[in-house]
Amino acid sequence: MSDSPVRRFSPAFRWDGVDALEYKTEGSAPFRDVSRQVLFQDEELACQLRYFEVQAQGYSTLERHQHVHAVMVMRGKGRCLVGDRVHDLKTHDLLTIPAMTWHQFRTEGPEPLGFLCMVNAQRDRPQLPTEQELQALRLDPTVAAFIAF
Amino acid sequence: MSDSPVRRFSPAFRWDGVDALEYKTEGSAPFRDVSRQVLFQDEELACQLRYFEVQAQGYSTLERHQHVHAVMVMRGKGRCLVGDRVHDLKTHDLLTIPAMTWHQFRTEGPEPLGFLCMVNAQRDRPQLPTEQELQALRLDPTVAAFIAF
Repeated sequence: MSDSPVRRFSPAFRWDGVDALEYKTEGSAPFRDVSRQVLFQDEELACQLRYFEVQAQGYSTLERHQHVHAVMVMRGKGRCLVGDRVHDLKTHDLLTIPAMTWHQFRTEGPEPLGFLCMVNAQRDRPQLPTEQELQALRLDPTVAAFIAF
Repeated sequence: MSDSPVRRFSPAFRWDGVDALEYKTEGSAPFRDVSRQVLFQDEELACQLRYFEVQAQGYSTLERHQHVHAVMVMRGKGRCLVGDRVHDLKTHDLLTIPAMTWHQFRTEGPEPLGFLCMVNAQRDRPQLPTEQELQALRLDPTVAAFIAF
């Protein structure tokens, strides 16, 4: 490892010295084809900046938590459920996921959906919906179609 | 203002509902042709995410501070002084500016240099170099050439 303050971008959205990690431990929560790279994590920074990539046909976990997500799309197109509404996302759009709001990302089209996500370094763990909460979400047909696997 | 959680990107690196601000108050510090947009600022987030753009021939203020900068280049090319070294920057490269380290950005070529900068919401004010500190920086000819206006 060099001690340069610069970490180079390389094609396909990888960076020098940044590992491509599993999004979550397989089987711990429902998701498909998502990778995670932690771009900035520093004890002197009160937030982390992560880069997530969802491959074509992929989706992130439907979840909620107390901490807020601050998102910028970096590549591709997608849709995101935020609460009870589905929003289209295009490259460089900004998205705020408020506290305790159900959310899930899905890729649209053949290109991966890549996005930055800033979160507080100190944060709570995500909650998965109970069967009752899923039933409540499915009362809206648009939401039901979006979260169907 | 809509209450949508999505703020759309529009050409020339502007976002719906995000003002293009002065980088700093004119005359408060040396800089040239820099704009600032605050993309995320929320009392529930411990950091802010800002977008800075330095036009061709432009430069940011030579300064240092206790807080750390976490930077991702979004467009264009540039160079950045970090401490006593000058680094090339290209689109999507990552850059960390450590605490109390002199730094300055300059654009390379005709395209603006645009970059994200994540900082702690609670942070100290930048310090400008004294004449003595400038003299010390100028002992290195590369640094002297870089910081010359």
